[in-house]
Amino acid sequence: MGDQVKYVLDESRIPTHWYNIVADLPSPPPPVLHPGTMQPVGPDDLAPLFPMSLILQEVATEREVEIPSPVREVYRQWRPSPLYRARQLEKALQTPARIYYKYEGVSPSGSHKPNTAVAQAFYNREAGIRKIATETGAGQWGSSLAFAGALFGIEVQVFMVRVSYNQKPYRRALMETYGAKCIPSPSMETNFGRALLAKSPDNNGSLGIAISEAVEVAATRDDTNYALGSVLNHVLLHQTIVGQEAIAQLEMAGDYPDIVVGCTGGGSNFAGIAFPFIGNQLRGGPRVHVVAVEPAACPSLTRGRYAYDFGDTARLTPLAKMHTLGSSFMPPGFHAGGLRYHGMAPLVSHVKELGLIDARAYHQVACFEAGVLFARHEGILPAPEANHAVKGAIDEAMRCREEGVSRTILFNLCGHGHFDMQAYMDYFGGRLVDQDYDESELAMALAGLPSVTEPV
Amino acid sequence: MGDQVKYVLDESRIPTHWYNIVADLPSPPPPVLHPGTMQPVGPDDLAPLFPMSLILQEVATEREVEIPSPVREVYRQWRPSPLYRARQLEKALQTPARIYYKYEGVSPSGSHKPNTAVAQAFYNREAGIRKIATETGAGQWGSSLAFAGALFGIEVQVFMVRVSYNQKPYRRALMETYGAKCIPSPSMETNFGRALLAKSPDNNGSLGIAISEAVEVAATRDDTNYALGSVLNHVLLHQTIVGQEAIAQLEMAGDYPDIVVGCTGGGSNFAGIAFPFIGNQLRGGPRVHVVAVEPAACPSLTRGRYAYDFGDTARLTPLAKMHTLGSSFMPPGFHAGGLRYHGMAPLVSHVKELGLIDARAYHQVACFEAGVLFARHEGILPAPEANHAVKGAIDEAMRCREEGVSRTILFNLCGHGHFDMQAYMDYFGGRLVDQDYDESELAMALAGLPSVTEPV
Repeated sequence: MGDQVKYVLDESRIPTHWYNIVADLPSPPPPVLHPGTMQPVGPDDLAPLFPMSLILQEVATEREVEIPSPVREVYRQWRPSPLYRARQLEKALQTPARIYYKYEGVSPSGSHKPNTAVAQAFYNREAGIRKIATETGAGQWGSSLAFAGALFGIEVQVFMVRVSYNQKPYRRALMETYGAKCIPSPSMETNFGRALLAKSPDNNGSLGIAISEAVEVAATRDDTNYALGSVLNHVLLHQTIVGQEAIAQLEMAGDYPDIVVGCTGGGSNFAGIAFPFIGNQLRGGPRVHVVAVEPAACPSLTRGRYAYDFGDTARLTPLAKMHTLGSSFMPPGFHAGGLRYHGMAPLVSHVKELGLIDARAYHQVACFEAGVLFARHEGILPAPEANHAVKGAIDEAMRCREEGVSRTILFNLCGHGHFDMQAYMDYFGGRLVDQDYDESELAMALAGLPSVTEPV
Repeated sequence: MGDQVKYVLDESRIPTHWYNIVADLPSPPPPVLHPGTMQPVGPDDLAPLFPMSLILQEVATEREVEIPSPVREVYRQWRPSPLYRARQLEKALQTPARIYYKYEGVSPSGSHKPNTAVAQAFYNREAGIRKIATETGAGQWGSSLAFAGALFGIEVQVFMVRVSYNQKPYRRALMETYGAKCIPSPSMETNFGRALLAKSPDNNGSLGIAISEAVEVAATRDDTNYALGSVLNHVLLHQTIVGQEAIAQLEMAGDYPDIVVGCTGGGSNFAGIAFPFIGNQLRGGPRVHVVAVEPAACPSLTRGRYAYDFGDTARLTPLAKMHTLGSSFMPPGFHAGGLRYHGMAPLVSHVKELGLIDARAYHQVACFEAGVLFARHEGILPAPEANHAVKGAIDEAMRCREEGVSRTILFNLCGHGHFDMQAYMDYFGGRLVDQDYDESELAMALAGLPSVTEPV
């Protein structure tokens, strides 16, 4: 096993293909439905929003999808990302476990999001599109698409949840540095935004609302497409380079995980690290215990219903079967803004239903505690979202210690926390509290779910 | 030359030795003087502040100093740092030049500073020291020593220039995350600080004052040592791994620089990238044109006097011969806080006097313009300090275009700008202006230089 701490692959080892787990699953995921007809959507239904190449990836069934060389070219700037053995943390925990983490914070925007942003910008540009509208919560997706847009000559318009827009001016400045236009949502730019502001001028916004605005812009303007940073199959597909690289790097270490941990908001960084390992298992490889860690204040996988629901608040999107808290659910404010989404990626939800993964929910204070412990021993300051994965991995390592068993734990450190220092200041200042969602609000949101249970 | 953009060395290629340019210089640098006796300081004079191993490095004359294996062990977390070919920027500039940059922003604290912080923490710990006092301006040094202190079990107390302490709470939070104690300077913790506050309670502080406070603490407390993040020979020595790695990476690229560019405040990142190339030249290797870029508002190399001066405001430090604006010089406020120091590293100054490097000064708005251009094409957001090197490299590349000559340009991208977004917001908001220093204040500061010109 050697005493290495960092496993670096040569850039020639950047995966040549994305891995599509659908090819290995015992059953396909339920189809996405057109909200008007309740019938499976066809490629043409999605054409106003996405280039055809991405639509075809959304329904792809082949195991491997080739990564276009201009996309790999851009990946080379920061990929393969490093895999670390957390030796200092192991020592501090006095655990017999071997803890590894894949670090996606080395990308230009500091998270895993550019893995798909670059691909999406490329396919849009290839289709002749020069403008993309999108949404962002904490700002990681928005800044990643802004970066990718700058590289491929695409104007990017980002609807940023208003509360984040006001609280996180620095993420906004990063988007603007990359040349994107950032608009607080709800905004006066869309019918939906105007209607919301007419009712409540101080509406703080939500990810669901911001998605509605960006979709409205893309659907009503011929020259503008839409892009989503998580949830959709093609987004998860693009992230699978993370897990593929991790497999190769663990091979260098002569190791293989017993446990794989990722945090889940929409599900893309989790799927990125976990799906290639689950695929190995499905094809007869070693079993892995895969743990999805979500915020207790927005617990779609552990408390949501597996049902057809909309992806946005205005109910403009197709219906997808997923673990959902209801598209009208408003989670309390907490610091992992990237995990504040009512639904879980349909593919992650399906894999959960198939019993291939476990889910677990943590409150934020315990996650920050884990993140600070990690930073003091490993030097890297995790994003609040990633702190959930850190906490999950530490808990597994402590279980190894209690049981006196050495297991190999791999987690995805999906981004750094340089733009989240206010959250750390709040944590140190004792101003961070654990908030529960409102049970009656959840019940109401779930009661409002569309009644469709399968395609008509 | 291939079409690679990133050159990554295996961790086995982390240099085993630091490179000491003194061994190759045609004449040694002038000795450092004791401020009482005006005679060269001996190791014992410095013993209250530094461990003996660092004092010996300060006066070392051998070409190579072995890097202790626990230090290399920590380096492995982010070293070798990547070397990039700036192909997108080259295209945007339509230059025939080949532009490479060494990226030190991949370190845990986001700059080159941990290269020496880790070494200094190690040697102090080895000498049984458990507390270190230091100063920080923009916060890059303070957070780097905080990180290194956490790894080696050393309490770190950081005197942070008060104006930065107030303007940069996030850098402070990063230090606190690593477990360091951060104190706004001038403070009530030292005699010097109390005296200054008695005179002017709203004193904004300066790097010179913060150094005085940290030195006072270290000199008066038996259990506490002092650490400096730039200027001193041993600090520059530790940074030479940057240039050594760059030489190996350019070899992978089949290339060698005609021009090497670095930004200079105290001089350590500049020396780190430049000295190994200058050393090659001195030993009969290819000539390189080495350019030090400094802020026009604090231009020690281009406008300072080469004279004996103190390193701090309270005149507690030994006297070093360097390019200085006078230890009482107060530069105007500008955003590259890491470059706001009155003096230049004695070794860099000496190398300048020997005609081995050129110096150039830029105002900040032009540097931010260069930094934004760089970010839009290369994806990485540079620190305001690093923007000076970006600007210097771009100017050289444009000269290549004008002259129709292809040259190889290497510059040190010494840190990322994630903690400097306020500066970028000010730039985009048109609130960033170029400020000149006060000529009469400079004249006064120079008039106040100590009268000693050589050892007695």
